[in-house]
Amino acid sequence: MLSQQELITLFKETRAQSELICSFLETEDYVVQPVVDVSPPKWHLGHTTWFFEEFVLKEYAKDYQLFDRHSAYVFNSYYESVGEKVIRTDRGNLSRPTVAWVYEYRNFVTKAMARFLEKEKVSEKLCGIIEIGCHHEKQHQELLLTDIKYILGHNPLFPVYNKQFKENPIQDIERDWVKIEEGVYEIGHKSDDFCYDNELGVHKVYINNFEISNKLVTNKEYIEFIEAGGYEDVLLWHAEGWDWKNTNRISSPCYWHKINGEWHQYTLGGMTPLIPDAPLSHISFYEAFAYAQWKGMRLPTEAEWEIAQNNFNWGSRWEWTESAYTPYPGFKTAEGALGEYNGKFMVSQKVLRGGSVATSKKHTRPTYRNFFHPQLRWQFTGLRLAR
Amino acid sequence: MLSQQELITLFKETRAQSELICSFLETEDYVVQPVVDVSPPKWHLGHTTWFFEEFVLKEYAKDYQLFDRHSAYVFNSYYESVGEKVIRTDRGNLSRPTVAWVYEYRNFVTKAMARFLEKEKVSEKLCGIIEIGCHHEKQHQELLLTDIKYILGHNPLFPVYNKQFKENPIQDIERDWVKIEEGVYEIGHKSDDFCYDNELGVHKVYINNFEISNKLVTNKEYIEFIEAGGYEDVLLWHAEGWDWKNTNRISSPCYWHKINGEWHQYTLGGMTPLIPDAPLSHISFYEAFAYAQWKGMRLPTEAEWEIAQNNFNWGSRWEWTESAYTPYPGFKTAEGALGEYNGKFMVSQKVLRGGSVATSKKHTRPTYRNFFHPQLRWQFTGLRLAR
Amino acid sequence: MLSQQELITLFKETRAQSELICSFLETEDYVVQPVVDVSPPKWHLGHTTWFFEEFVLKEYAKDYQLFDRHSAYVFNSYYESVGEKVIRTDRGNLSRPTVAWVYEYRNFVTKAMARFLEKEKVSEKLCGIIEIGCHHEKQHQELLLTDIKYILGHNPLFPVYNKQFKENPIQDIERDWVKIEEGVYEIGHKSDDFCYDNELGVHKVYINNFEISNKLVTNKEYIEFIEAGGYEDVLLWHAEGWDWKNTNRISSPCYWHKINGEWHQYTLGGMTPLIPDAPLSHISFYEAFAYAQWKGMRLPTEAEWEIAQNNFNWGSRWEWTESAYTPYPGFKTAEGALGEYNGKFMVSQKVLRGGSVATSKKHTRPTYRNFFHPQLRWQFTGLRLAR
Amino acid sequence: MLSQQELITLFKETRAQSELICSFLETEDYVVQPVVDVSPPKWHLGHTTWFFEEFVLKEYAKDYQLFDRHSAYVFNSYYESVGEKVIRTDRGNLSRPTVAWVYEYRNFVTKAMARFLEKEKVSEKLCGIIEIGCHHEKQHQELLLTDIKYILGHNPLFPVYNKQFKENPIQDIERDWVKIEEGVYEIGHKSDDFCYDNELGVHKVYINNFEISNKLVTNKEYIEFIEAGGYEDVLLWHAEGWDWKNTNRISSPCYWHKINGEWHQYTLGGMTPLIPDAPLSHISFYEAFAYAQWKGMRLPTEAEWEIAQNNFNWGSRWEWTESAYTPYPGFKTAEGALGEYNGKFMVSQKVLRGGSVATSKKHTRPTYRNFFHPQLRWQFTGLRLAR
Repeated sequence: MLSQQELITLFKETRAQSELICSFLETEDYVVQPVVDVSPPKWHLGHTTWFFEEFVLKEYAKDYQLFDRHSAYVFNSYYESVGEKVIRTDRGNLSRPTVAWVYEYRNFVTKAMARFLEKEKVSEKLCGIIEIGCHHEKQHQELLLTDIKYILGHNPLFPVYNKQFKENPIQDIERDWVKIEEGVYEIGHKSDDFCYDNELGVHKVYINNFEISNKLVTNKEYIEFIEAGGYEDVLLWHAEGWDWKNTNRISSPCYWHKINGEWHQYTLGGMTPLIPDAPLSHISFYEAFAYAQWKGMRLPTEAEWEIAQNNFNWGSRWEWTESAYTPYPGFKTAEGALGEYNGKFMVSQKVLRGGSVATSKKHTRPTYRNFFHPQLRWQFTGLRLAR
Repeated sequence: MLSQQELITLFKETRAQSELICSFLETEDYVVQPVVDVSPPKWHLGHTTWFFEEFVLKEYAKDYQLFDRHSAYVFNSYYESVGEKVIRTDRGNLSRPTVAWVYEYRNFVTKAMARFLEKEKVSEKLCGIIEIGCHHEKQHQELLLTDIKYILGHNPLFPVYNKQFKENPIQDIERDWVKIEEGVYEIGHKSDDFCYDNELGVHKVYINNFEISNKLVTNKEYIEFIEAGGYEDVLLWHAEGWDWKNTNRISSPCYWHKINGEWHQYTLGGMTPLIPDAPLSHISFYEAFAYAQWKGMRLPTEAEWEIAQNNFNWGSRWEWTESAYTPYPGFKTAEGALGEYNGKFMVSQKVLRGGSVATSKKHTRPTYRNFFHPQLRWQFTGLRLAR
Repeated sequence: MLSQQELITLFKETRAQSELICSFLETEDYVVQPVVDVSPPKWHLGHTTWFFEEFVLKEYAKDYQLFDRHSAYVFNSYYESVGEKVIRTDRGNLSRPTVAWVYEYRNFVTKAMARFLEKEKVSEKLCGIIEIGCHHEKQHQELLLTDIKYILGHNPLFPVYNKQFKENPIQDIERDWVKIEEGVYEIGHKSDDFCYDNELGVHKVYINNFEISNKLVTNKEYIEFIEAGGYEDVLLWHAEGWDWKNTNRISSPCYWHKINGEWHQYTLGGMTPLIPDAPLSHISFYEAFAYAQWKGMRLPTEAEWEIAQNNFNWGSRWEWTESAYTPYPGFKTAEGALGEYNGKFMVSQKVLRGGSVATSKKHTRPTYRNFFHPQLRWQFTGLRLAR
Repeated sequence: MLSQQELITLFKETRAQSELICSFLETEDYVVQPVVDVSPPKWHLGHTTWFFEEFVLKEYAKDYQLFDRHSAYVFNSYYESVGEKVIRTDRGNLSRPTVAWVYEYRNFVTKAMARFLEKEKVSEKLCGIIEIGCHHEKQHQELLLTDIKYILGHNPLFPVYNKQFKENPIQDIERDWVKIEEGVYEIGHKSDDFCYDNELGVHKVYINNFEISNKLVTNKEYIEFIEAGGYEDVLLWHAEGWDWKNTNRISSPCYWHKINGEWHQYTLGGMTPLIPDAPLSHISFYEAFAYAQWKGMRLPTEAEWEIAQNNFNWGSRWEWTESAYTPYPGFKTAEGALGEYNGKFMVSQKVLRGGSVATSKKHTRPTYRNFFHPQLRWQFTGLRLAR
């Protein structure tokens, strides 16, 4: 359990970071929702604030007055059990509350929380809730970056978000294969540090001999797949991946553009020529799978990845695994509304491991289980081969 | 033909009026597009500006430099023949160009136009184009108001646009019936004043005896229809109207809300109790038709309306007619891109006559042919009975 | 009013004709519904039978016992006011009742009707209902042919329906123009012969000078339009026609196939090389309009067509007119369920005049108002130019 | 490897069984496809025949002449790599080839195969292909039964398929819990008998202590869940299950009908009162999961099920497991078109274990991995609790 002072530091630094991320935006950028998965930045700022107001201040802070009885409910996301909410597809249709209002709301709640944390001794349970609230906001910080990238990167003017943002670290190593011996291993979160409920339940798994690459697949390698006709060879694809690709006329990763015969990539630093040695990014699970098929290899499972991960560097791309997102043995949903956090998504999604250039600092770890539907590409998703 | 001075006045006053309408908005209100028919206000401001740049300055103003080679094309609407354009459903996904940029663009073009009009003698043809540009912008002023009403009126916070805006003038007269004698009449636009191409072609029509009400149907009268089960009686409805009503779960006009058992109406002045004697507004053609069926009467045709119109007051509501929007005898599409203005919409739409509280001053007349699809309700649409 | 003997003859000949049409089918052909507008032939046979059972025998024949209390209701079409019905899109999902059952049902009702007509003196009102029932069945005979054509013509095996069926009569005349003088004319159905309610209300119209072709547009002429790029020139099309064409990837009339570089046409007699001089068929209103635009001409209105029609031959193609399907002055919906026959479709459709090679004999006349949505092509639709 | 005589027996008995299943149908029942997952029976009969013609006779039988060069290709299902095919959603739109044609085609191919098997010594490889062809047809026999149930059970007349068909065996035992000890176990197909490629790769798994019920959940137990408001308690459901349920207005298993206050169930033997002690059937994975949540338990994984299965009776219902359908360690896709059999479906589906009253005899085994999307209910799907 964090000390109260550590909690205060975590809280303040988290709140500040969200605002730093948004400091590069124009007011208009906060408002739009070009596709359902991409929420307006002002919604993220409001929603992470609503979380603290709803689950902490309303419950625990004596005499706390809601900032605004009428508006705040628009920032509920999926907590069906906490009353009325704006349907997700409508988030981009709401010009009000304004961005200025959202910042006032943030300041109001941040100050009330700070006052509360300085005055009241928080119980272990409440500390846990606040810590979740901070990590929840860190998750939304990553979403802020990926959603901003989608908003600006699908605008025909391709505006720059922040020239300094570095998306494409080069992996300056030779490709090599980490060999893991067959046997019983233990996975799951062990320490007392923060983790989500879906990582809990340390348990044994039996693993066969396998090898895993020390290096993510690069842009250059993926171009070979494209040029070899990988997008046109039905035998490399899942049936639903093939349909997805055809329906959406996909023939390259998201954000790739061929301009005057040269591959370019939209990045948060603007449109730029594709860097051949950078790790591939913004691919769907289907594309990751088809690439691995083409190489005669496969994707690792999440258990393999976790067991092998201290043998290679990771953290620039979320790495698709072959594993579906299902509960660990002994998984228990938390009581009440916070029980809606993870468990209710445990069907039809794939696990991703690692972390990305957009992941908030200290917000990932070897046991972290990220999950997305197999067709989604707006996260910084990449791929590491196994065999 | 207008004198050059009249043209300058018309132009300046038109440009100023659009900005006055928007002066009540927050930046965020300029950006969203909750449904496809409702464009973001910044799009209207940009599009009406693009019209003058594209069709006047680029063609006629020597040495004119485009304000911005890259951005302006996002404001093309439907002129397929004038190159690339952003698809309509995407207008609300574009956070850039910003509102500030749009105002700079407006100022740049307004000033360039003003300089041009003060320096150059415009030909009759060019005068016609500029006049169309002004009337085009007046049309968009009406759309600005109805689109703003939709944006704010579908926000769960129901923000006020402008407390002073009066939507609901009372018709302070007894209902009476204007009788028109059977015979040959002439309709269509006769004078030299401005009109659209779809009003031209004065032509004779043969009209049977008919009567038309001097008064629009009121809210109170429509409530009687609702309470008599009008929305549940299939025999009153067109087949496609019945489907539309069921699919969209419609049981009252747009913007009506029953709050604590009392009918309220969202207006540009905010949420307010429904005014019983105000003219009914925001109904579809299907609802207008079903009401008339229920009364054992009918809607007038556009020819009947035009012949009878100087016998009653009109202008607070667009009045649905039974007439489909088809070309007048001898209708000719204009040459070039401006030929896309009216003719290409002459199928599957209904004619509305009159004008509304949102119509720009001097922008309607007895021969004006407005048109919308039968299901649309976001305009100030009402109904006048005939028999 | 028909004599009782005439009524009996009409009834028997009508019933026999439907069965003759279906005698060329395999059992399986009676069942399928490839698109919503195309009903399974067994549905047509059952529905026309249900009409007589529901509106005649149940009401007027003492002691009549329903053929089957449970099954017959599946043959209600759109009579919302006559109780439960199977939704239209589900017609092709029903394997039961079987085709054999439907024929038994037909025989049962046909015999009951024949007995009734031989025994009872029918009133004028009932005579009218039975006559409508016969004409209703004749309408469905045309639909049977066009629906069968769709079912077989969209089967990849392109089976022959009936080698003897002649779709493509040559118009063996020179193109000429019929000139009609400006003035007041009368249109609408005058004689005592059968007609639908939508033709009633003889009324005066004022017509301007116009010319209308004595000859339908031919396949050869339409190929010129295709080869001149008519399908790619946006300025020729209505906005919604352009979208329709693009969404559905239309670039030639329905049933046209280019096989080894030669145009072929699927006909009820099988796949055959296109006959250049045959009248064009199976086009949408949008295509008819675009062709006329390309020729610098237009489509006639329905009034023009009716006034001019005795100056040319017609009857091989339904001819799209510019007129929308709206009520004639004084139109009154019939009382009760039969009131759903015509009036409820009077929105968003276009009038077609004439008749086609699939129209039942004696089932059309100069005042007949056929109507379809502008995008539909499965009827034998063609076009005659006016100017 | 089967002896040639065993192969002949397997082949003949398989072919006969498909025809026996269809012997209860009317011709019309063979044709319809009410939803995309349900194929017309004639398609199943043709497709299983095409399999032998395409993969055996065309390749291996000297001088074999195709039954019909033009028609057979309509029976390709999803073998993208074997040329043109009719899209799946269109299967129910094809009245031709007729049912009689399909039976001729079956007889032709069955006889050619029999002749071939009696004359030629088949290689091990070919024996494997033919065996797959037989098991493939057995899979389609199960689909025939479930598709027929859907076709007749969604017909408003609820026709009986076969009065003798028994769907609802009572489990005449007390509920008890099988306890399995933690440790390393081996799963996967071991013997030389036939199995699919997805069962291969015997491998070790580590299993925690768990208990599994000896008895499937019964109708009576599920009614308790319904009556306790299980369908209305959001906290019991996956997010996408909740949406599925609401969108499709689901509040009971498929084929359940409340008639005069009593639960009934459509069965292949007709509509019948629900049997309280029969095993629950026709539920989605979402419903299985929600029920288990409500009981405070869970579904077993497929490994748990396989390890425990010889401690209880199974085979009347396909049992949803928590496991996603992913490849076993070392899974290899077969070469060529048959490689499309299993691997391409290994995403977004759930594994079901066991077998059902509709499963062909000898066509299931403890290692059999069935798989369906979580929302599907037309199979005989049930649920067994674990904890």
